[in-house]
Amino acid sequence: MSTRSFNPPVRTLMGPGPSDVHPRVLAAMARPTIGHLDPAFVAMMEETKALLQYAFQTQNAFTFPVSGPGSAGMETCFVNLVEPGDKVIVCQNGVFGARMKENVVRAGGEPIVVEDNLGEPIDPGKVEDALKKHRGVTLVAFVHAETSTGVESDAQALARIAHQHGAATIVDAVTSLGGSPLSVDAWGLDAVYSGSQKCLSCTPGLSPVTFSERAAEKIKKRKSPVQSWFLDLTLVMGYWGTGKRTYHHTAPINPLYGLHEALVLLKEEGLEASWARHRQQYEALRAGIEAMGLSYLVKEPHRLPQLNAIRVPEGVDDATVRSKLLHDYNIEIGGGLGALAGKLWRIGLMGHGANPKNVMSCLGALDAVLAELRAPIQEGAAVTAAQKAFA
Amino acid sequence: MSTRSFNPPVRTLMGPGPSDVHPRVLAAMARPTIGHLDPAFVAMMEETKALLQYAFQTQNAFTFPVSGPGSAGMETCFVNLVEPGDKVIVCQNGVFGARMKENVVRAGGEPIVVEDNLGEPIDPGKVEDALKKHRGVTLVAFVHAETSTGVESDAQALARIAHQHGAATIVDAVTSLGGSPLSVDAWGLDAVYSGSQKCLSCTPGLSPVTFSERAAEKIKKRKSPVQSWFLDLTLVMGYWGTGKRTYHHTAPINPLYGLHEALVLLKEEGLEASWARHRQQYEALRAGIEAMGLSYLVKEPHRLPQLNAIRVPEGVDDATVRSKLLHDYNIEIGGGLGALAGKLWRIGLMGHGANPKNVMSCLGALDAVLAELRAPIQEGAAVTAAQKAFA
Repeated sequence: MSTRSFNPPVRTLMGPGPSDVHPRVLAAMARPTIGHLDPAFVAMMEETKALLQYAFQTQNAFTFPVSGPGSAGMETCFVNLVEPGDKVIVCQNGVFGARMKENVVRAGGEPIVVEDNLGEPIDPGKVEDALKKHRGVTLVAFVHAETSTGVESDAQALARIAHQHGAATIVDAVTSLGGSPLSVDAWGLDAVYSGSQKCLSCTPGLSPVTFSERAAEKIKKRKSPVQSWFLDLTLVMGYWGTGKRTYHHTAPINPLYGLHEALVLLKEEGLEASWARHRQQYEALRAGIEAMGLSYLVKEPHRLPQLNAIRVPEGVDDATVRSKLLHDYNIEIGGGLGALAGKLWRIGLMGHGANPKNVMSCLGALDAVLAELRAPIQEGAAVTAAQKAFA
Repeated sequence: MSTRSFNPPVRTLMGPGPSDVHPRVLAAMARPTIGHLDPAFVAMMEETKALLQYAFQTQNAFTFPVSGPGSAGMETCFVNLVEPGDKVIVCQNGVFGARMKENVVRAGGEPIVVEDNLGEPIDPGKVEDALKKHRGVTLVAFVHAETSTGVESDAQALARIAHQHGAATIVDAVTSLGGSPLSVDAWGLDAVYSGSQKCLSCTPGLSPVTFSERAAEKIKKRKSPVQSWFLDLTLVMGYWGTGKRTYHHTAPINPLYGLHEALVLLKEEGLEASWARHRQQYEALRAGIEAMGLSYLVKEPHRLPQLNAIRVPEGVDDATVRSKLLHDYNIEIGGGLGALAGKLWRIGLMGHGANPKNVMSCLGALDAVLAELRAPIQEGAAVTAAQKAFA
């Protein structure tokens, strides 16, 4: 057994997350730990809530980071909003929709799955049909930005349809928050969860969530207790709420320093500027990818700029390419998940990592590795095309 | 809304946790983030598991840190081991026993509460009686080291009795791990959870757990699915197990760097040496506390060295004292929880923070604050008494 300190290699993280963490966030992680009920910490919690309201574009009072990764945020939404026997429409067009279904089942709900092809957005017409067919649906759950395929769905349209049928929404915004337009209040989203490790340039482990008045009411009116004690919002809000702070669990102090710093960075840049930067980097990357002769899984109007799902060309071994990028260039990109394993590369341009240096080095390295493997690409074209796009 | 970086005050953390974090752990938190499936990270995961086996004194294969605070570790044990209708004996002699009961109820189990007074250890005789009275009990759950009162219970005796009646055990070792004797295999404990922020000198947010063969078998034989997707061990072990790593959730990378470093520190010092150091600091603190004329809640043979529960003297306002310690001396100590609110101070000597400097500064500051408030104490006696104890 080793008893040596761990010194990680220095990677460039361009997969589906975690993404490159801003140096200011890393520095914040190492600040002196203080108590979870320290007045100075409580003041920082209030700032974090306000900064998250800005990031989510919401006035929701129930806006805070869950003390666990995105899957804990997902589960927070489901166990608090689903009661045994509830009918829940789950839109499924990727891996994370399938997880939502699993969450509904385990919370005792009855999932009604509305399926779309991998790489395609959720069809609002199908959701409307399902709502007409199944009376008494209480929730519509969907992924705004599918990290497994890089597709964006029309969250506003889906929320409108859900509300027209008296249903609230649970929305996965893990990959969208901070990276592409998301407007919780204007779009009327009810329960939204995200992650710290994507477009916020923060370390993984926290899950920002927000709950509308409608969602908060639904939770208050529950007939059965929430099955999770750790994720029970009525208890958690005793700590994160505005009144006297009641100890519920010991908050992850230093990771919360990191998230606060990441949100300060987002506020300094401005949300719209951040969205625009992500799009600009995507356009340059796309120019390079297409010049190489590679293609995207998702059609243009539905592509997420921060998650580029690129088809692995015929005859090329996905894992070999990713391994070479990691070992020879210290660049991490992602592979496909589930049915898309071996068929996709997922290149993330997220948060701090959405910058021209990363675009260029990734394209240059991918070009070199594919050329070395004699893949059927247009060698040497990628970097020049991206340069032109940036010009 | 502030958009400024947060710079916490520099406190000395001598409450019930978080405790003072070792500078090497803080430095580890700021190391460059890498991917959760990076080969370098996977190698570090293996080291962390081995180091945790050492800390827990176990060979259990199912030994890893849950990606959430101690309450998530607690819930991991209960939702995986309790099935609907299961009879579970819950020993209750403090706040954390009450939480265990809540966990049993929410997992659909039938709790049988065996109660002992606050500040007293769990009476193994009562547990034996309950096991004889209620046939078919599947689990006995108890807190080894009650953080709310500073009392230690005889985990080995309780586990022996449980096994004699065919029941497995769930054990809260949040405050004991690393600070006072805990020997999972020798004592025959089945499911044990702890926290990173107590005697490991690490930041809060992770919960080391370990499961015996008996517990692992029980989980494999479940008739109903685990109600939590996030905490379902059969899924989590797909990521933390030894075979091909399957993505379950994005691990909290940097906090895991911190935990690894904390465990390396523990290995460097040696577990027995760490236990001895905690006891030595306790003896010096106790000498000072008693010289002042203050008294402990818990009787001597059952006291936890790392959590000193001291009675607030008559006529002294608990909150005023803690507030003065925090603001005038930057020292945090804890107050009482639940029925003991306002009646107790909880002084932690945990991990890195269990050192003579902390003992002396805490005694000196407490002495000064109490003297200022004209409390009925023996002024100026504490520090000298502690010095003698150290000599």
